[in-house]
Amino acid sequence: MKKIKFAVAGLGRIGKIHLENLLQMNNVKVVAVMDPTEESQQYARDKGIENVTATYEGMLASTDIDVVVICSPTDTHADYVEIAAKAGKHVFCEKPLDLSLERVLEVLEVVKDSKIKLMIGFNRRFDKEFKKVKDLVSEGAIGEHHLVKITSRDPGAPPVSYIEKSGGLFLDMTIHDFDMARFIVGKEVDEVYAKGAVLVDSAIGEAGDIDTAVITLTYSDGTMAIIDNSRESAYGYDQRVEVFGSKGMVKADNNLHDSHQLFTSKGSQGSLPLHFFLERYAKAYKTEMSDYVKSLENDSAVPANGNDGLQSLKIGLAAIKSLQENRPIRLSEINQFQDIKMIK
Amino acid sequence: MKKIKFAVAGLGRIGKIHLENLLQMNNVKVVAVMDPTEESQQYARDKGIENVTATYEGMLASTDIDVVVICSPTDTHADYVEIAAKAGKHVFCEKPLDLSLERVLEVLEVVKDSKIKLMIGFNRRFDKEFKKVKDLVSEGAIGEHHLVKITSRDPGAPPVSYIEKSGGLFLDMTIHDFDMARFIVGKEVDEVYAKGAVLVDSAIGEAGDIDTAVITLTYSDGTMAIIDNSRESAYGYDQRVEVFGSKGMVKADNNLHDSHQLFTSKGSQGSLPLHFFLERYAKAYKTEMSDYVKSLENDSAVPANGNDGLQSLKIGLAAIKSLQENRPIRLSEINQFQDIKMIK
Amino acid sequence: MKKIKFAVAGLGRIGKIHLENLLQMNNVKVVAVMDPTEESQQYARDKGIENVTATYEGMLASTDIDVVVICSPTDTHADYVEIAAKAGKHVFCEKPLDLSLERVLEVLEVVKDSKIKLMIGFNRRFDKEFKKVKDLVSEGAIGEHHLVKITSRDPGAPPVSYIEKSGGLFLDMTIHDFDMARFIVGKEVDEVYAKGAVLVDSAIGEAGDIDTAVITLTYSDGTMAIIDNSRESAYGYDQRVEVFGSKGMVKADNNLHDSHQLFTSKGSQGSLPLHFFLERYAKAYKTEMSDYVKSLENDSAVPANGNDGLQSLKIGLAAIKSLQENRPIRLSEINQFQDIKMIK
Amino acid sequence: MKKIKFAVAGLGRIGKIHLENLLQMNNVKVVAVMDPTEESQQYARDKGIENVTATYEGMLASTDIDVVVICSPTDTHADYVEIAAKAGKHVFCEKPLDLSLERVLEVLEVVKDSKIKLMIGFNRRFDKEFKKVKDLVSEGAIGEHHLVKITSRDPGAPPVSYIEKSGGLFLDMTIHDFDMARFIVGKEVDEVYAKGAVLVDSAIGEAGDIDTAVITLTYSDGTMAIIDNSRESAYGYDQRVEVFGSKGMVKADNNLHDSHQLFTSKGSQGSLPLHFFLERYAKAYKTEMSDYVKSLENDSAVPANGNDGLQSLKIGLAAIKSLQENRPIRLSEINQFQDIKMIK
Repeated sequence: MKKIKFAVAGLGRIGKIHLENLLQMNNVKVVAVMDPTEESQQYARDKGIENVTATYEGMLASTDIDVVVICSPTDTHADYVEIAAKAGKHVFCEKPLDLSLERVLEVLEVVKDSKIKLMIGFNRRFDKEFKKVKDLVSEGAIGEHHLVKITSRDPGAPPVSYIEKSGGLFLDMTIHDFDMARFIVGKEVDEVYAKGAVLVDSAIGEAGDIDTAVITLTYSDGTMAIIDNSRESAYGYDQRVEVFGSKGMVKADNNLHDSHQLFTSKGSQGSLPLHFFLERYAKAYKTEMSDYVKSLENDSAVPANGNDGLQSLKIGLAAIKSLQENRPIRLSEINQFQDIKMIK
Repeated sequence: MKKIKFAVAGLGRIGKIHLENLLQMNNVKVVAVMDPTEESQQYARDKGIENVTATYEGMLASTDIDVVVICSPTDTHADYVEIAAKAGKHVFCEKPLDLSLERVLEVLEVVKDSKIKLMIGFNRRFDKEFKKVKDLVSEGAIGEHHLVKITSRDPGAPPVSYIEKSGGLFLDMTIHDFDMARFIVGKEVDEVYAKGAVLVDSAIGEAGDIDTAVITLTYSDGTMAIIDNSRESAYGYDQRVEVFGSKGMVKADNNLHDSHQLFTSKGSQGSLPLHFFLERYAKAYKTEMSDYVKSLENDSAVPANGNDGLQSLKIGLAAIKSLQENRPIRLSEINQFQDIKMIK
Repeated sequence: MKKIKFAVAGLGRIGKIHLENLLQMNNVKVVAVMDPTEESQQYARDKGIENVTATYEGMLASTDIDVVVICSPTDTHADYVEIAAKAGKHVFCEKPLDLSLERVLEVLEVVKDSKIKLMIGFNRRFDKEFKKVKDLVSEGAIGEHHLVKITSRDPGAPPVSYIEKSGGLFLDMTIHDFDMARFIVGKEVDEVYAKGAVLVDSAIGEAGDIDTAVITLTYSDGTMAIIDNSRESAYGYDQRVEVFGSKGMVKADNNLHDSHQLFTSKGSQGSLPLHFFLERYAKAYKTEMSDYVKSLENDSAVPANGNDGLQSLKIGLAAIKSLQENRPIRLSEINQFQDIKMIK
Repeated sequence: MKKIKFAVAGLGRIGKIHLENLLQMNNVKVVAVMDPTEESQQYARDKGIENVTATYEGMLASTDIDVVVICSPTDTHADYVEIAAKAGKHVFCEKPLDLSLERVLEVLEVVKDSKIKLMIGFNRRFDKEFKKVKDLVSEGAIGEHHLVKITSRDPGAPPVSYIEKSGGLFLDMTIHDFDMARFIVGKEVDEVYAKGAVLVDSAIGEAGDIDTAVITLTYSDGTMAIIDNSRESAYGYDQRVEVFGSKGMVKADNNLHDSHQLFTSKGSQGSLPLHFFLERYAKAYKTEMSDYVKSLENDSAVPANGNDGLQSLKIGLAAIKSLQENRPIRLSEINQFQDIKMIK
């Protein structure tokens, strides 16, 4: 069997995870890696990668490549996808494609023309908890969906320097929840209402962002979704989904370190959640990549495509506008020539 | 010890519960009961109540009374409270005092002048689950509160004939959740945004009401509360609260019939929730009344007073206005001369 | 409707509970009470009981009585049941009938001749958790039963003075678990093996008893039951049952004060169990008495009869013998002329 | 850094798991593999193993080896360990070393003389659930331990042909639980009492074995442990531990596929357990091997040594004798010249 030749651009935390997962797949060969730092280059060499380069162009030129996995900083995503697509290489790109709607639309045009398979890294779709919820909803276990509730809280805020480039809470963090809401419901959002506050760290507020938020999404069939976010959950990462419908309700609980329960005269005690996304979604990252590989092998639809990236971005932009204007925003109000930004 | 002399006006489901609970208290004597139906009158006589009448005035005239418990239809509450207050009798009144803000303000003026102790029947404040959450929040167990989440779903919608007189979902059902949000946070709500839909029964929509809703409450300190409601939960009554804060999170789960878990080759199975408010809040009703009796004995503040009724009504009116205008409404926009109604 | 006339002998903790429950039943009238203490007599008078006496004979003579509820000290049970049975009065008797097998057999003969309805107070059969487990097992939800696991731990040991008269752990505490094992399986136990130790309080050991035990019961169909006991559970009362069978497993968890969960940086915390049997089985006591009343009204079989008391006693005596001889004891080895005692 | 050179003997299910885990370790190099089947040999070649042989002797001769991992059939373990030890190679050996006490003692003598590090594959010690329980017990979180409860049920019985060579339930399956009881308590068992039955499959009984069992272990300090086993759990693999002590109780629940809960009008439903040991202990196998590698690197004690294998075997033999003679057996009664066998 001919192995699919992968190249990985960017060996930060996520890049390393994707690299490790690719290395364990029998039908894949990682032929090249790009990272500007010496440490990451050495890491790749230790893993036996033959072509290790410092530039994206260098990587693409180094050998024959079928697929590029883009894990470099957000502001490189659009360019890198475009270059790969034009070169006829499939692309797995970490979210978001770009923070600018106009730029995303441009890139998606290029991708469309190229006929490559673009997958966006919405890893949570591959988490066994959320997949189970999605499957039960799809099978009709709860009848027609009426309400979706998503809790998503990070264990701690990133540095303000990161936040300044992130596009803000809605585009950096909630965008995963927007995708989850779309994934579960299987329809496009009609209207967004967002409330936010700076309750965790005033420096985040000074940077123009918020750290705590509640967002209501409305679908044209009347279904409503509620998302609550915090940048700092004292007890750790908190990732839960609940869907209520005409025939019942299904929910997935947060994942804890272990199931122990200690009972003493002071009460009962249990474990904390798995620390953060690397721990919680370790398996999801594996499934995500192997599902992408399957779609390449079978020439079938990817499980999270460019349009998924686009729609979540639009919801995020609507959330920003809603927060800024304190009114519900219809998705149809969002168009590419607006300059909606959280952090100016 | 001299017993406190109680009279109960209205022996519907709630009236009977309060009567039974009062009959078990050592420091209380139920001296009179009023209900227009023969069946309820016989019920009271069988319980050994000496003065059983068909009219409120008749009841008040029948014997010496210290306290009146008002469980008659909503549209009698305001008048009955006023009459009792003017007669110097303490009042325990089921919620709401009235659906009109103007009328509530009038009644509260009368109560204020009378110096009687008016308690409003916000029974959920006395539920052991929610009290525990409230106590932990008050003790600082979760630090500063940032987010409150209230789930409140009924097992089935009442008849449309009931809904037509109820004031609609927000004043009939969500009003308990508004009070819970105020109770937990201990501050007044600043702004309300409500979304609703008719997803359960189109007849409810035709009556001018909704059956499914999501409401966001904002407090001036940045705290946000989210409430989700449905008139029809296929799996039964669902009553949960979660509070997230700077140092942690506390939540109370729904109450099930029993804790059994059955594992078979088909999966694990457990019990359904307690059927409805009579079952779920059976103990809360007991505590509620005995706490009220304590406040009478000790001449201390009642645990849910006229202002609590007033504030929840104002939030409910703001929710109606928000739904109708699809915009966030500040509580300060709600004043007594407006005619805000869900069902015209 | 003619009310059934009840008399209660002994107003200790359990006697008061039965009295309160009887007072709330519409088809029952408590006509007499016996207790040697002035405090309990006053308690009964405050409840409106007309005939309050200090002696059992006085109570029986005081008025017309249909049923006697015996809650007096254990060493009076056998005599009181015998007297009542001979007088043609139905009897509800707290367990155990007596600690001597010979005496129990004598009393059951008298009861048999009298045709009265004797109920033994095995309250746990009426607990909603255990009833649910029993019902599911009976319905075949787990197929054929193979293993039964019963956990039963008290929050604290009684005074040694109590233990000395109690018959020891197996006859005082485990006897409830023996009955539960019989109740769940619905068959008689074949063999008993008991291990015990003094791990809580050496004074208990000096009194000739143990405070911690593990008992294995074997049924003739191969089913095995395991019971574990402790007189002192630091976290409170612990009452659980699990049944494993050919098609699955069902278990009932311990009952906690409330369902709250608090998550902080230190872990998750929850409530302790309901304190002790009075709290845990409050509802079970109610159901127990009303089920007994139903069997009187319908002239149907009582849900826990004299033979149930007898069989549990025999298992208890076998457990004592097993502990003393460190070998499995068949129930058939236990006969009335043996002198098996834990505390000599 | 010099890598430790590993060889793996036997590429069945467990052998493949150990091989995969070793291949992911940076400080390890797998230099040789032995398996008699072509399929497994090809599997190893595909993984890039240089020396792939069909015989143990061939493997040892093929290249320079530091450590041998023995995953071949049970009846080869003793010989293979002896050969490796005499050749000065460290050994990781799957349990059991041998089913004969005499042979195990012989092998341990050879190991002792050789000064190699022998680790026995008691994988459950490395499960995060049980480690947490062990750690909390060791830290004194529950005070002095009084009771240990171990539930261990397989999803389905192995073929009778396997059972016939397995040594029977106690030596094949319960031996893991015996080790767990020793691991948790940290002391040697004093006495064993075992009850068993054939309730799952009569063919197992015809082979001389049992399929359902309850075993009570007693320690000299009075601590008691109860183990319950079944070869066939309709709902899947069930692995739980609970420890009760003077200051509290700690338990670890079974591991389910996911945490979802579905509530419908029929009740609540959740997931089944992870299928079997390969799924449940996937991470434990990883930790087990990396902990062994650490003990090699640091020249520290292995976390499960030859004596651990010996003691569990002795408990298993005592359990067989107890079952056969229906009496408690002291460990001191077990000596190497007895011929204790479940399946003759």
